[in-house]
Amino acid sequence: MQTVELTPAQKARRDIREGRHQGPTHGLAMGYVQANLVIIRKPLAFDFLLYCQRNQRACPILEVTDAGDAEPKRTAPGADLRTDLPRYAIYREGCRTNDETKIGHLWERGFVSFLIGSGISFDQALERAGVPTNKNRWVLRTTVPTISAGPFHGNLVVTMRWLTPQQAITATQVTSRFPFNHGAPIHIGDPDAIGADLRCPLHGPPVEKAPKELVAVFWACGVTPQAAAEAAKIDLMIAHAPAHGFITDLKADEICLQ
Amino acid sequence: MQTVELTPAQKARRDIREGRHQGPTHGLAMGYVQANLVIIRKPLAFDFLLYCQRNQRACPILEVTDAGDAEPKRTAPGADLRTDLPRYAIYREGCRTNDETKIGHLWERGFVSFLIGSGISFDQALERAGVPTNKNRWVLRTTVPTISAGPFHGNLVVTMRWLTPQQAITATQVTSRFPFNHGAPIHIGDPDAIGADLRCPLHGPPVEKAPKELVAVFWACGVTPQAAAEAAKIDLMIAHAPAHGFITDLKADEICLQ
Repeated sequence: MQTVELTPAQKARRDIREGRHQGPTHGLAMGYVQANLVIIRKPLAFDFLLYCQRNQRACPILEVTDAGDAEPKRTAPGADLRTDLPRYAIYREGCRTNDETKIGHLWERGFVSFLIGSGISFDQALERAGVPTNKNRWVLRTTVPTISAGPFHGNLVVTMRWLTPQQAITATQVTSRFPFNHGAPIHIGDPDAIGADLRCPLHGPPVEKAPKELVAVFWACGVTPQAAAEAAKIDLMIAHAPAHGFITDLKADEICLQ
Repeated sequence: MQTVELTPAQKARRDIREGRHQGPTHGLAMGYVQANLVIIRKPLAFDFLLYCQRNQRACPILEVTDAGDAEPKRTAPGADLRTDLPRYAIYREGCRTNDETKIGHLWERGFVSFLIGSGISFDQALERAGVPTNKNRWVLRTTVPTISAGPFHGNLVVTMRWLTPQQAITATQVTSRFPFNHGAPIHIGDPDAIGADLRCPLHGPPVEKAPKELVAVFWACGVTPQAAAEAAKIDLMIAHAPAHGFITDLKADEICLQ
């Protein structure tokens, strides 16, 4: 009998598919690129792809499946987008009506799936460079407008971290090497300058007040296109639940060399 | 009376629009990003955008206009894609049937225009780093397949230069800084390894035999999506004529910092 050696990414997806892992994916299969998921129906796919192209820093597209195909053939051959994320958020008319742990029963032949780069992907590179990533991370709305496409519109969503000035410099250097995964920060310093809403983080605990020597560093966030799809109040969208991403076979160390 | 100071890019576009410049755009408004143009009808726009996304090294999208809009609002506000390129190639059923110097009389409300990054954009950065760009440059077909999307398919088209080994290293460093404009070379050395067709360059004079100390360096080329649209034999496509590109307001030195 042959033993098949699974990669850490394949193993993590199998654990998720078989229900052994049900929580957030941060820290799973470190070094592999994680993706945000947006599934919409074909008639809106062009406008959504265009929205992502026009706001590339926030919405770096890793893969778009053919309509009806649940296998991301290029970034994770053999995977199944209906079962391989630990939690899905179902949006109807722009509202998150319920969550699911599998979505096979909701699947339609006209579904187009978008995998969008997530900042979680460069966490290992940041850690290796001495920038801690496991806390002090929030997802925030801003007042910076994105460029609309068809019905998709809204403001930029950002990831914020409190860092020392030296860590901020190092983090800028490291993330610049990931141009297809949000890249360098879009802002450093005063949250008000970009209208970052510290009172109501979209993800993360209440924002702590930081010691005076720390600086806020902001990256464009892959939740932006999800917020745009919500704002567009489209009939039906299925997305990953925040922090419950899709683990691809791409290695972060390799995509930074594209 | 007020004098309006035009930028070199705006001046070059005006000269083209008013017929004072009719030849290739290489060397015009150096330092500004030049783009390849593909115009197709709306029903094929999603598949074409998807083809570009799936083959991003060859087809870095700079802008996609809304249907019927001839103004590239984000990369060259005020410009007109019907008049501001020196020469257009008209393709019907996949064949280049004729060239035009203006296309206003062919314009349709359903036209979607794609501006795709051109390697000409980083020529000034190469020159400054000591890599000559004004000759020794060919556009060649290869046998490397691209990833298809809808009807769009075909092999990768590349730009080839003969360089010294030291220039090849420098050129790799410099072009790596332009991830959204083809980026680093896709191959160095033996043309046969990628099936590069040296006998029939798509652009440039017959390929010279190079001295033994020179090495061939290959970049993914923005002509690739045009070749894919030809292969798809779509009803109607309008493209820039080879080497007659569109000059945007983007500065090469700035986009490399995205």
